[in-house]
Amino acid sequence: MIPFCPQCGQPTRQRVPAGDNRKRSVCGACGYIHYENPRLVLGAVVEWRGEILLCRRAIEPRAGLWTLPAGFMENGESMEEAAARESREEAHACIDQPQLFTLVDVPAIDQVHVFYRGILRDGQHAPGEESLETALFSEARIPWSQLAFQTVRLTLEHYLEDRRAGTFRSHCLLLQHVKNH
Amino acid sequence: MIPFCPQCGQPTRQRVPAGDNRKRSVCGACGYIHYENPRLVLGAVVEWRGEILLCRRAIEPRAGLWTLPAGFMENGESMEEAAARESREEAHACIDQPQLFTLVDVPAIDQVHVFYRGILRDGQHAPGEESLETALFSEARIPWSQLAFQTVRLTLEHYLEDRRAGTFRSHCLLLQHVKNH
Repeated sequence: MIPFCPQCGQPTRQRVPAGDNRKRSVCGACGYIHYENPRLVLGAVVEWRGEILLCRRAIEPRAGLWTLPAGFMENGESMEEAAARESREEAHACIDQPQLFTLVDVPAIDQVHVFYRGILRDGQHAPGEESLETALFSEARIPWSQLAFQTVRLTLEHYLEDRRAGTFRSHCLLLQHVKNH
Repeated sequence: MIPFCPQCGQPTRQRVPAGDNRKRSVCGACGYIHYENPRLVLGAVVEWRGEILLCRRAIEPRAGLWTLPAGFMENGESMEEAAARESREEAHACIDQPQLFTLVDVPAIDQVHVFYRGILRDGQHAPGEESLETALFSEARIPWSQLAFQTVRLTLEHYLEDRRAGTFRSHCLLLQHVKNH
């Protein structure tokens, strides 16, 4: 819902446009219809010699907690490019052999989170502007109580489970109860 | 890029916000930053006794041509719910046993298209408001030259190929050259 028209700056009204079945913000002056749609968040599980790369967040939300590199997909890029860009920006990490891994619906916050998995090129990483530090964690050392987001926890759980089973699949998941996300 | 601020109605400027690396529309009055992100289009391949459900479009773009039921995902729903809603709205069709099938990046138009596959409940279908007609097509009768969208063609090709092979997988695809999409 937006109070003003982004095309002409005049006030909008909430109404159901002709042929539609949902209320939208519609401009009273120029007729522009504003649609709001879910956003894609892209990230990656990057492994090096059995350890997984995590970033400690320098920014809100959840500053100080650990996450997989991830962020909003931008216009003009593919999902794989977005996952690679986020890994580069947040952890100066390059991903080899990227494969789609999890898709997590988060309807409570109008988002879909998509994680790729891959190999950390040359084992190289370092904190980007949005990270306080980056580090590789063995399964036993993953800071479960200090993870920033539930979709990161879900993705790590599926990753470790698949790795133990010896076969990675892609997973379609639904996160229904969002807590501090 | 939007010329006016949707929060206060004042003009925006194109500039790179602090800590960002891309130009955004930023409000000169209230400082609101407008982010534009790719949209998700959700659809479904629905089969009944070996035939696939298609809809002939009543609306632009590509009015008169055939498509799989599909449309923009809405806030507050999961991907599976969006695919089910589009099938219901465009073809009065219900999907049993839905499974994720294709994910197609279409960066040229800032979209990601996601198709589920499933079984058409009771073989029932009928045109919704956005369709002129709905019909079930055997592989030999699919109107390849009259398909509305390239992502629909790609998805149908992979569906038929997987069906011939006897195993459905999910597919991550990239559509790089968009033509009349």
